Amino acid sequence: MAIPSQRLIDELRSIVGPSHVLTDPAVTESYAIDWTGRFRGATPAVVRPGSTAEVAAVVRVCAGQGVAIVPQGGNTGLVAGGVPLAGEVVLSLRRLDTIDAASVDVAAGQLTAGAGATIASVAAAARAAGWDYGVDWAARDTATVGGSIATNAGGVRVLRYGDTRAQVLGVEAVLADGSVVSHLGGLLKDNTGYHLPSLVCGSEGTLAVVTGARLALVPRRDERVVSLLGFRHVQQALEACASLRRCLPSLEAAELFFADGVALVREQLALPPPPVVASVYLLVECADHVDPAPALAHAVDSIDVDGAAVAVDPAQRKALWRYREDHTEAINAVGPPHKLDVTLPQDELAAFCSDVRALITSVAPSSQVWLFGQAADGNLHVNVTGVEPGDERIDDAVLQLVVDRGGSISAEHGIGTAKKRWLPLNRSEAELTAMRAIKHALDPQGILNPNVLL
Amino acid sequence: MAIPSQRLIDELRSIVGPSHVLTDPAVTESYAIDWTGRFRGATPAVVRPGSTAEVAAVVRVCAGQGVAIVPQGGNTGLVAGGVPLAGEVVLSLRRLDTIDAASVDVAAGQLTAGAGATIASVAAAARAAGWDYGVDWAARDTATVGGSIATNAGGVRVLRYGDTRAQVLGVEAVLADGSVVSHLGGLLKDNTGYHLPSLVCGSEGTLAVVTGARLALVPRRDERVVSLLGFRHVQQALEACASLRRCLPSLEAAELFFADGVALVREQLALPPPPVVASVYLLVECADHVDPAPALAHAVDSIDVDGAAVAVDPAQRKALWRYREDHTEAINAVGPPHKLDVTLPQDELAAFCSDVRALITSVAPSSQVWLFGQAADGNLHVNVTGVEPGDERIDDAVLQLVVDRGGSISAEHGIGTAKKRWLPLNRSEAELTAMRAIKHALDPQGILNPNVLL
Repeated sequence: MAIPSQRLIDELRSIVGPSHVLTDPAVTESYAIDWTGRFRGATPAVVRPGSTAEVAAVVRVCAGQGVAIVPQGGNTGLVAGGVPLAGEVVLSLRRLDTIDAASVDVAAGQLTAGAGATIASVAAAARAAGWDYGVDWAARDTATVGGSIATNAGGVRVLRYGDTRAQVLGVEAVLADGSVVSHLGGLLKDNTGYHLPSLVCGSEGTLAVVTGARLALVPRRDERVVSLLGFRHVQQALEACASLRRCLPSLEAAELFFADGVALVREQLALPPPPVVASVYLLVECADHVDPAPALAHAVDSIDVDGAAVAVDPAQRKALWRYREDHTEAINAVGPPHKLDVTLPQDELAAFCSDVRALITSVAPSSQVWLFGQAADGNLHVNVTGVEPGDERIDDAVLQLVVDRGGSISAEHGIGTAKKRWLPLNRSEAELTAMRAIKHALDPQGILNPNVLL
Repeated sequence: MAIPSQRLIDELRSIVGPSHVLTDPAVTESYAIDWTGRFRGATPAVVRPGSTAEVAAVVRVCAGQGVAIVPQGGNTGLVAGGVPLAGEVVLSLRRLDTIDAASVDVAAGQLTAGAGATIASVAAAARAAGWDYGVDWAARDTATVGGSIATNAGGVRVLRYGDTRAQVLGVEAVLADGSVVSHLGGLLKDNTGYHLPSLVCGSEGTLAVVTGARLALVPRRDERVVSLLGFRHVQQALEACASLRRCLPSLEAAELFFADGVALVREQLALPPPPVVASVYLLVECADHVDPAPALAHAVDSIDVDGAAVAVDPAQRKALWRYREDHTEAINAVGPPHKLDVTLPQDELAAFCSDVRALITSVAPSSQVWLFGQAADGNLHVNVTGVEPGDERIDDAVLQLVVDRGGSISAEHGIGTAKKRWLPLNRSEAELTAMRAIKHALDPQGILNPNVLL
């Protein structure tokens, strides 16, 4: 890849305006370090276009000079997929944050959002129109639509609404030659060739720069109930989860966590004891148009559970959620953690939970392992403290175990730079060859995020 | 493309066994004519492999000799996307019809099916395990999993469960060089590179030969209610549909049709008068774990409707469905029809219904126009009788009207050979260039279904 010239910087300034090309290292620094703090690069320029046409022009001049680009949204990624580790130009999409009222189709339940709009702003616009956005996770206030598409973000509601790919009806995107594809009509049935939105979802900025998306919304359901369920062991919790999933259409979340995590959260954040004391917990939330509490109570009656607490009013619901959501903050307080994000098949998840603890302890005897995740999806977040966050002995051991059990080495964070080395564990040479062929077809010069994924 | 040699035929026989290479024109004829009867070709050989390894070997020898292949499933397509119109070898996947009990994951709600399994057999296996398959349409007994992936089949339940792409968690497929990609683990969160299953869905056999798929199932819901609702005009029906969609999570189908279609069905199939007499009809079906009739009745109370009939027991439900499902048979009886399958944005659908009738009448004054479709998806099936099924004046006029109104020229049938000429109406040069680049990347010789789509 070519090194950006002064001429390129000047051209970028003429496209987006001088104030939107940042070159002062003190200013660009925050764009060059990832959320974890573990991955730090540098960039000759952060370019902040204000329209799809400006994005196209930026890509065109970079392509013309063979200069690599890293597209960046809210920079909340955890695998170094959006930071300039090899001196790339950063193309920040944050100014494309429009969700205008005219773009909300109330009858169809859809809206069009700019790539830089945050997930929270999409949800707010949807809710104002009587709908909701199906994808939600903790970084909602910073993470952007574009980033969520690049990583095919999942989050806590995948069991009900699917991942980001399932919400994206169309995208507007700039290809590597600066041409623009735009398919934002939001038609639910539209089989006119290859589905580029699905291909772009999860491609981590390597195939196109997404500038906007047409998103499907879900009905807004304000009647909610949260329940904390206690179990003796993981298998019991998973069987309960499978049973609830089948008989409760209103089930929206089923978070799995453990007594040690709850103790850490209590210790670090001074929470009261949970209303249920158990070795393994499921936190479930149901949402419906009518009060879902009776249906949940009926469903819980038919499962094997050692204790259950129910919360209906918002403050009580939030109090129960804190035992799960505060895991990240509590772990960071004793951290910084080495974070892995993996998926196991349902029938391997219980054994994996105990085996992974033993395995990590054997690799790093002084470490501590914290597990939590989405029970219905098999998505387990493995956080390890007491080791260097960059200690790849942990990845080597854990990711091999995951693959041996039929799992995925990346549930929802993606591959980025951080996990590239392990991608062949999950993908055959035939699959990698096909992916490389697609990458080369759409970006023959390799200017779009060339150092991630493949 | 090369013409198949006797040597190739011999090699194919050695791969799949002599009885599975059909060359007698009297036998191959049914593989060379499409469902509509309008598109008729010829093939030097129909090859019927019995395993993925055999498919791979077949593709390899054809690729080695530069011979084109048309993959074929149940051959129920309507756009000549699966028939050998240019003398291609037909690769029939029908023998790959396995859905073994071991492949059904009852806890996760998933199964693995061979490409040749019919949609009805998938649904039956799912239902036997306490689940159901989300995609359903009239050709269920013949249409196959592979064909449904090739065309990204939609059908009547898209409003609740999405299209085929939304069900496909993974595929096993043979690429154009004979290599096999297999990703059938069924993990719900698995972000490890480009999502090939989504790309293959809707690619009409041009990128890979799908040999099997991991399919997500939906909860089996046996409590059902069907209601026939009558309206004065289309807009009133669409507003009712939007309202029902928002307040009835159990809504599974919302079929739109018209008084003239009902009259034709009654005339051709000797049905009794419908219990509701109206200009425009919606047939809605709700399914839940508990009786959905009270919720439907409550919802219907709040919409503007001129008449409603409700059916709960299976025979009565079927009797109401006949007014809609018998449209195809009744139209064929006065046909053969010229069939178009288009999608309109919700806010254009009502005007389109009247405009398209006037437009077709102006193009072909002696024709009759029959409309029906899926109200919530905006998918309208435009059937025209009294003209030649190949009369492209109809396509020229109707498809231009569709595009002028922001619609799609192919809702769920695909492009195939029949609609290739009009694809640029819906897809920009940048999109077509990107699609061609992907096609060339994965099939550089152009041996997989080279005459369809692009």
